[in-house]
Amino acid sequence: MKRPNPLLDKMQAILPTIAANAAQAEIDRTPPEENIRLLREVGFFRAFQPKAYGGSEISLPEFTDCVAALAGACGGTAWGASLLATHSHQMAMFSKQAQEEFWGDNPDATASSSIAPFGQTEETEGGVIFNGNMRWSSGSDHADWAILGFNRTDVSGNKVYCFGVVPRHEYTIIDDWYAAGMRSSGTKTLVLKDVFIPEHRIETAKGMMEGQSAGFDLYPDSDIFYTPYRPYFACGFAAISLGIAERMLEVYKEKTKNRVRAYTGAKVGAATPALMRIAESTHQVAAARAFLEKTWEDHKEHGERKEYPSADTLAYWRTNQAYAVKMCIAAVDRLFEAMGGMSWFNDNEGQRLFRDSHMTAAHAYTDYDVCAQILGRQLMGLEPDPSMV
Amino acid sequence: MKRPNPLLDKMQAILPTIAANAAQAEIDRTPPEENIRLLREVGFFRAFQPKAYGGSEISLPEFTDCVAALAGACGGTAWGASLLATHSHQMAMFSKQAQEEFWGDNPDATASSSIAPFGQTEETEGGVIFNGNMRWSSGSDHADWAILGFNRTDVSGNKVYCFGVVPRHEYTIIDDWYAAGMRSSGTKTLVLKDVFIPEHRIETAKGMMEGQSAGFDLYPDSDIFYTPYRPYFACGFAAISLGIAERMLEVYKEKTKNRVRAYTGAKVGAATPALMRIAESTHQVAAARAFLEKTWEDHKEHGERKEYPSADTLAYWRTNQAYAVKMCIAAVDRLFEAMGGMSWFNDNEGQRLFRDSHMTAAHAYTDYDVCAQILGRQLMGLEPDPSMV
Amino acid sequence: MKRPNPLLDKMQAILPTIAANAAQAEIDRTPPEENIRLLREVGFFRAFQPKAYGGSEISLPEFTDCVAALAGACGGTAWGASLLATHSHQMAMFSKQAQEEFWGDNPDATASSSIAPFGQTEETEGGVIFNGNMRWSSGSDHADWAILGFNRTDVSGNKVYCFGVVPRHEYTIIDDWYAAGMRSSGTKTLVLKDVFIPEHRIETAKGMMEGQSAGFDLYPDSDIFYTPYRPYFACGFAAISLGIAERMLEVYKEKTKNRVRAYTGAKVGAATPALMRIAESTHQVAAARAFLEKTWEDHKEHGERKEYPSADTLAYWRTNQAYAVKMCIAAVDRLFEAMGGMSWFNDNEGQRLFRDSHMTAAHAYTDYDVCAQILGRQLMGLEPDPSMV
Amino acid sequence: MKRPNPLLDKMQAILPTIAANAAQAEIDRTPPEENIRLLREVGFFRAFQPKAYGGSEISLPEFTDCVAALAGACGGTAWGASLLATHSHQMAMFSKQAQEEFWGDNPDATASSSIAPFGQTEETEGGVIFNGNMRWSSGSDHADWAILGFNRTDVSGNKVYCFGVVPRHEYTIIDDWYAAGMRSSGTKTLVLKDVFIPEHRIETAKGMMEGQSAGFDLYPDSDIFYTPYRPYFACGFAAISLGIAERMLEVYKEKTKNRVRAYTGAKVGAATPALMRIAESTHQVAAARAFLEKTWEDHKEHGERKEYPSADTLAYWRTNQAYAVKMCIAAVDRLFEAMGGMSWFNDNEGQRLFRDSHMTAAHAYTDYDVCAQILGRQLMGLEPDPSMV
Repeated sequence: MKRPNPLLDKMQAILPTIAANAAQAEIDRTPPEENIRLLREVGFFRAFQPKAYGGSEISLPEFTDCVAALAGACGGTAWGASLLATHSHQMAMFSKQAQEEFWGDNPDATASSSIAPFGQTEETEGGVIFNGNMRWSSGSDHADWAILGFNRTDVSGNKVYCFGVVPRHEYTIIDDWYAAGMRSSGTKTLVLKDVFIPEHRIETAKGMMEGQSAGFDLYPDSDIFYTPYRPYFACGFAAISLGIAERMLEVYKEKTKNRVRAYTGAKVGAATPALMRIAESTHQVAAARAFLEKTWEDHKEHGERKEYPSADTLAYWRTNQAYAVKMCIAAVDRLFEAMGGMSWFNDNEGQRLFRDSHMTAAHAYTDYDVCAQILGRQLMGLEPDPSMV
Repeated sequence: MKRPNPLLDKMQAILPTIAANAAQAEIDRTPPEENIRLLREVGFFRAFQPKAYGGSEISLPEFTDCVAALAGACGGTAWGASLLATHSHQMAMFSKQAQEEFWGDNPDATASSSIAPFGQTEETEGGVIFNGNMRWSSGSDHADWAILGFNRTDVSGNKVYCFGVVPRHEYTIIDDWYAAGMRSSGTKTLVLKDVFIPEHRIETAKGMMEGQSAGFDLYPDSDIFYTPYRPYFACGFAAISLGIAERMLEVYKEKTKNRVRAYTGAKVGAATPALMRIAESTHQVAAARAFLEKTWEDHKEHGERKEYPSADTLAYWRTNQAYAVKMCIAAVDRLFEAMGGMSWFNDNEGQRLFRDSHMTAAHAYTDYDVCAQILGRQLMGLEPDPSMV
Repeated sequence: MKRPNPLLDKMQAILPTIAANAAQAEIDRTPPEENIRLLREVGFFRAFQPKAYGGSEISLPEFTDCVAALAGACGGTAWGASLLATHSHQMAMFSKQAQEEFWGDNPDATASSSIAPFGQTEETEGGVIFNGNMRWSSGSDHADWAILGFNRTDVSGNKVYCFGVVPRHEYTIIDDWYAAGMRSSGTKTLVLKDVFIPEHRIETAKGMMEGQSAGFDLYPDSDIFYTPYRPYFACGFAAISLGIAERMLEVYKEKTKNRVRAYTGAKVGAATPALMRIAESTHQVAAARAFLEKTWEDHKEHGERKEYPSADTLAYWRTNQAYAVKMCIAAVDRLFEAMGGMSWFNDNEGQRLFRDSHMTAAHAYTDYDVCAQILGRQLMGLEPDPSMV
Repeated sequence: MKRPNPLLDKMQAILPTIAANAAQAEIDRTPPEENIRLLREVGFFRAFQPKAYGGSEISLPEFTDCVAALAGACGGTAWGASLLATHSHQMAMFSKQAQEEFWGDNPDATASSSIAPFGQTEETEGGVIFNGNMRWSSGSDHADWAILGFNRTDVSGNKVYCFGVVPRHEYTIIDDWYAAGMRSSGTKTLVLKDVFIPEHRIETAKGMMEGQSAGFDLYPDSDIFYTPYRPYFACGFAAISLGIAERMLEVYKEKTKNRVRAYTGAKVGAATPALMRIAESTHQVAAARAFLEKTWEDHKEHGERKEYPSADTLAYWRTNQAYAVKMCIAAVDRLFEAMGGMSWFNDNEGQRLFRDSHMTAAHAYTDYDVCAQILGRQLMGLEPDPSMV
């Protein structure tokens, strides 16, 4: 039985507009202002914000259902907007001082990120000086802050992977997002020149994974913050892949129902291969959804029980989602490959879903080769391989 | 969170014995007496028997979890025994008089079946005279009754697909189960010569699918009988496929951990391909389980709500399980094909799981070509094709 | 052993230029003038032109090797240009009068086509009056003529599928080729208004398939015209798919060799999954090539022996190429899905090959659902289904 | 165009008998005497024997075509007999003295083998003392000699992988071949106790791969011995897989043509899914054949040109065959999984082909995980990994 999901109910009203904007959003290569405004109005960006700042702290399964629905309307908007929302979860693990700066004056504040450790830093009094062209910052056009990855060096000379938070006026955005998929995600490059980041806006990745960050357990009554940051941070990718695949099932039905073959006039939609393709993809997407729902429910229950996930559990959380993405893409391919030449025109939603779907597996987090090795090592009792996180 | 499952808890104690019997059971080509006795003692055969006769009326999800666990120990026993158990659910939809004959004196009674309509019948006063060599009756060696399929002719001359119930002393069993898979299922042929079946032991398949049989709603307080018979009757196939696949994951880990390559002495278990295979099959089986659990939960909730499933819902129930079987077999293949030549010896559990796993898709009910067409027609708004049930 | 292929040798010199033009060609959405000029200079468009008009009448295997190489440089140019070249083969089956008009004054003349029978015609003295917006005419910007499909009605009232040939000045081209794949193919719409097509420029499709067209056997010394038109007409699709896949193998190697993972700096190119992906795709593409070469060789030998293909042989020729396309796309997907996010940028050849590759299966002729049914019916001894040609 | 193949022509007469023996051969777990006698009579075992001893020295493509045809009749016989035949090729690379002993008195002599280096040896004057239970010696019941693998130690203390040849009266055979596939191959264990092997019957594996063995170039006029031994030694596995798959295509057609569904009487053979399955498997097997033929032709041409294969070429020869095996198994699975429950009975050829087919991938030589890494390393310019040969 589906549980109530008030945010999803509210989103139903705005999804048609967001869907109608999708084609133009691809041309603009960023989520449309209107989409962002509508999402803000229904409270989408408040999903994982601490209640202390007006957030709703909804459960992971509620949020991912909303992301999937949003991705069915516009994959790129879902990509950009869901990251803005999940970064608020990550912000809740920074120091109280950082959160005050972030939300104190502007409870609507959101962050985009570029967390691969490509930043160059220099240690200085009370923090670091940051330089870098930080790529892949989805949703950056609509963010008020940025979370940035870099390596520090500890006393033993080891690299320590860190995140720092920087306000919008301290960096510029290069409009370089020209890509074959997720065009409307606005995944641009942030340029930081000699930006000082104070210690209270710096946390280590390890601390955030192990419940050791400054903000950990700051909200003891919350059900969603007793957890490593990453499963929340990264929940959107699979939800988006799922939403795109679910939308493709509908598009295929609509387009195929009345399609006839050019050369013979034969009805495609009633032909056995078309029936079998929609059936198998429907099964596959439904199985992917069931798998994700069960995984997300497990996240939720851990948080409610204040139980930190074991290494085994984390390996599943880390990798189940990438397997579900594989399933969703296979389901999309099975349909798109039978939709005919007309589905390749720019004004056909099919080709956009096909491109966006495939791109959901191109993120480092959804790379199944990496995920299969992570889980495989865990299952066979081998030590984790530090080259795969 | 896993819900309590008292039957499963009791079964844990007997599964090692059943697993130890598996090799001999293949040679005997029928479930071992000891297995049947142990299953009877823990109440396995009472799962779907009406409480009125001492049954436990457990939920479908509880039962299928038990079947999956049993299949991990011995696939053939699970095949034979689960059908004996689910036929009790079907019996509960026959007339009260039939049930009294069936369970009145022997509350432990079970039935095997052969329900494809291959019986030859002649109408007679108060019933039919039945003749037929009825194949594929799994578990028949341990059944007290048989449920048999045949076609009657209605007043308009149309075939009406029916089931009749016949006691053990009225038929003989041919020991003809020589097969490459599910060897211990005892899937033998029942020979009936001029057997009279009275009307009160006959129901139509359609009646049993549409809540119109004599026994429908006989137990208004029950949560499991307000339903078509078939989803319960056929629930075991996918549960068995799942249980075999879950066992294969363990066997692969055990066998592969210390395996070395014959020619080079290289360790197979720590090699990347082995890690990736176990990971992907683990994901695939977990996704199949999540999909089946969600489907079975839906059965359960319909029964509890006394809501008869819609045509759409039935199409999913009918076909989801066959898709899950496909997933499980693919997972088994991915492992078995990398287990090396040693896994082909008769004393290696791997080859038995491989054969049994593939055979779970050979039942008419798990034929995915048929299932894909059934669901595809439903999704595309076409009428059901009567040649596919 | 590779046989000599003089055209291929000549093309080696121009392929780097064509490859260098590929990105701009996508933006222009038509094969660049320079590409067409270079191809004309090496004699590409003369491949299947009758020697009587200065053509070279090279063998099918020689031609397809050239097309594959061309597709590795620019898929869209290969799509457009190969059709211009194969239409010359089709022209050689029209009447001598038509050929004189076509090549008499301009031996460099080529035709694009739009052969699905969407034209509207009216019978008139000595021919038909043709009207229609004829879509999907690849390479049309560079063609001097167009071959157009329409249905006539025979005396019994049956539709007769026909082709008519029309000179460039009698139609206009709509620049409507905005698509997600094969962008540089220039696959535009031809608009014909009340165009008269004389009988000598009309042939039936059936006649062209069965050696009954006006021009059949006009060149008794030729090795390439004693054949149905279609296998020659359609040979390019699979050759293009092959060439794209072969190029993808190279691109993957180049891009992956030095790639590192963003988060960990781990070397992707030396990792086992990357090795296994390139190996499996290399095998798959090599198998597709072997399959196509054997099939194309069979075409060639039939022509040389003046042996018309049997229904069985035709079913293989018709369908083998679509199976090879499937193989090529699977090989491309296996690579692209592991090339990481950078491969999605517009300036990365990987994403273009991915899009173009998938589109090679979107033509009616490469639709594998149709092909599987055609061959399946033939294999099982069923009559051909007229809805699938 | 098929080239003449006199051995294949002769085999046509004996294949029906071999096919008729197949079921009993499975029960006997070794190739039937009659099969061996018939194969000897047509000259099968002379295929790769030096002409000097009465052999025919036919080409690899001729031989593999014969093996494929034989496998279509009885997979196990093909497995055992083809190894007996290919070992003669390996024998031709041993010293002249060894060959004299082997064929001098008995030109019909053949060898089985067990070449994984599991033998235990002690150095002694003029050779080694060999002890070992040598498993997996296919066809051993019908061999006159055995070729056995072991490691010696060179002066630097490195292992040197060697083969030694031992006559039949110096070892015993354990009848321990109880397996789920290739049952009639007689793949038994050879027991050697303190057997002396003289130096002239010992060669290193490396020498045999690199043209450095005592017998290399002993027959300068031959077209088949200027080569590493392994591609000839191992050619049978893929040929067998191909032959089984080609036979499955026929069996599927025969069984499916008139099959009806048990529950509905619907005709399976004319149904679209059945048509599509046979078509796709036919394509896949045909593509596998084309790929193997091209590879085998390349072996042949190298031998004829007296050109030793490069490392690149060897990597393809080593691995192409394993990819073809994958294709063949996939084709068999696609058919068998749709052949219904009846195909699982022991007397149904389908299940035997299914089991035998899968087992063709269980040999160390056909392990695709290994092959993919071998080729992948070669393609990416990495050094060969000594743990994978």
